[in-house]
Amino acid sequence: MGEEVKNKQVILNDYVKASVKESDMSLRTSTIQLRIPAGCDDAVLVKNLYLSCDPYMLLRMKKLEVDSFQPNSPISGFGVSKVIDSSHPNYTKGDLVWGITGWEEYSLIRDQSGLFKIHDTDLPLSYYTGILGMPGMTAYAGFFEVCSAKKGETVYVSAASGAVGQLVGQFAKSTGCYVVGSAGSKEKVDLLKNKFGFDDAFNYKEEQDYNAALKRYFPDGIDIYFENVGGKMLEAVLNNMRLHGRVAVCGMISQYGLEQPEGVHNLFNLIAKRIRMQGFAVHDYYHLYPKFLEMVVPQIKERKITYVEDIAEGLESAPNALVGLFSGRNVGKQVVVVARE
Amino acid sequence: MGEEVKNKQVILNDYVKASVKESDMSLRTSTIQLRIPAGCDDAVLVKNLYLSCDPYMLLRMKKLEVDSFQPNSPISGFGVSKVIDSSHPNYTKGDLVWGITGWEEYSLIRDQSGLFKIHDTDLPLSYYTGILGMPGMTAYAGFFEVCSAKKGETVYVSAASGAVGQLVGQFAKSTGCYVVGSAGSKEKVDLLKNKFGFDDAFNYKEEQDYNAALKRYFPDGIDIYFENVGGKMLEAVLNNMRLHGRVAVCGMISQYGLEQPEGVHNLFNLIAKRIRMQGFAVHDYYHLYPKFLEMVVPQIKERKITYVEDIAEGLESAPNALVGLFSGRNVGKQVVVVARE
Repeated sequence: MGEEVKNKQVILNDYVKASVKESDMSLRTSTIQLRIPAGCDDAVLVKNLYLSCDPYMLLRMKKLEVDSFQPNSPISGFGVSKVIDSSHPNYTKGDLVWGITGWEEYSLIRDQSGLFKIHDTDLPLSYYTGILGMPGMTAYAGFFEVCSAKKGETVYVSAASGAVGQLVGQFAKSTGCYVVGSAGSKEKVDLLKNKFGFDDAFNYKEEQDYNAALKRYFPDGIDIYFENVGGKMLEAVLNNMRLHGRVAVCGMISQYGLEQPEGVHNLFNLIAKRIRMQGFAVHDYYHLYPKFLEMVVPQIKERKITYVEDIAEGLESAPNALVGLFSGRNVGKQVVVVARE
Repeated sequence: MGEEVKNKQVILNDYVKASVKESDMSLRTSTIQLRIPAGCDDAVLVKNLYLSCDPYMLLRMKKLEVDSFQPNSPISGFGVSKVIDSSHPNYTKGDLVWGITGWEEYSLIRDQSGLFKIHDTDLPLSYYTGILGMPGMTAYAGFFEVCSAKKGETVYVSAASGAVGQLVGQFAKSTGCYVVGSAGSKEKVDLLKNKFGFDDAFNYKEEQDYNAALKRYFPDGIDIYFENVGGKMLEAVLNNMRLHGRVAVCGMISQYGLEQPEGVHNLFNLIAKRIRMQGFAVHDYYHLYPKFLEMVVPQIKERKITYVEDIAEGLESAPNALVGLFSGRNVGKQVVVVARE
């Protein structure tokens, strides 16, 4: 028997109907044995260090046909964790991993197929919830694989200071594209222009007419749209796309909290401009992860690429941090520190 | 000077606002010299034999930024014509051509870059407005190039008895796919099942709930949707697509007559199911036309592929035939015979 310890957890109270409020979650303290139970093969027991707040999590809080979180149970998401005990031959005590874990202090992970071992610990461990983890791979796969971006093309990124957007912008610049981002505050717009090197940026909350805003920044139209928000912005973008444009559909954060998503009325643009619009999921591209690290790690170390995180301290702050995503309160990738080691 | 003859024409009275009525067009008789005017190089003068009624023509009747028809002038479209006089070295009197021509008895075509010479006259000449012309190439490019269809996949075609749809269904069968089509009458549904060899077909006008209808015909979902109609049907299809599905967006005929097109509210399916949705235009694929003919001509001659036309007699019937497309009155490809030789 291992030591029994208290295990603080973030619980989903009940399915969420539209947008998520802090009161949809609660903190609970249960207990856990710090050893894998007998007969539980191929499992790992981890101490959670960093948790990732990601927009898709709101969808899992709703009652869906598949993949919903369970009410009255801890929610789960991407995180960085330290292995405390393992019954799987590939993992031993002390290993650091990133992947799907529970929103709690300690997690028993019975299916370790969603975990990646962390080898390079020269960089901040929290980066494995962001630039070196799922959002980084999402930006990489979406921009290079889905969009087939070419030098000289014009690129628009929405939610551009977020976990994924800030990287897409930097990849676009290093590819020789013209890139403009939108975000929801002056502070974020400054970050886009001054820290991430976007050619230009605007605060969508200050624009009455997205169509007019996009025409201003893209007088000759948009070749590539990296879609993170959906709804009215997507509609405006379709009006401003160029012939043979590509839309990588990564997320639609503006729609997740609506009971009825907004309608997009101008899909005829797909025909008129021969646009390819493609949804993708990072899971389909994980085989490229080693290649991605090979590219991105040296760029981080040489400070050619930068990454901004918004760190919330303590598991207690996790519900608030997650909810903040949907009002755009976070500046950069929203991370929750549960423990630093 | 050539002989001067009367030239009946179909005139657009004024820009069309929403749907098109017969009274938006009128017949006018002007005169034309049956010889190319002096100084008019690289032109052809043709006698029009068959005219093609195509849904996109309604869009050109509206006031758009580009490509609108001119009020008080003859409209134009695809057709089959006989060369009467030529100042272009590639064409001589007696040649048969298909491509963009006027809705009139005789046309002076100053830009012959949109014309294709007809070499094989063993098949009905009217076929060059359909299976051997633009609609045939559209079905071919959309199904084989845009959808990357594979044996064993499930295919849904809307407006399936139309100029393009009837071919997509037959291409799908010859590729080893399961294909279901929808159309707007019992007669058309019978045609799909009994003449074109669709695995199944339904009358969309008899369905209260497109979602339920699609679930009935595709219990395991749709791999490929050949989109001809848009709006509510597209929305229902997105709910029924499978992972990694593809939507070739060819047309949206249900939307062309609306002042405000219907909104599509469930584009999130593109992410959840990693769907590729791609608009295309046949112009981008004309380099494949010889390869297409090589495939399709023997199949027609061996009766492995069939094509149904709806023939209207005389230029006077052209406005009525065109308008009929939008209520689905035509059965098969709508053609207007101006002259048989």
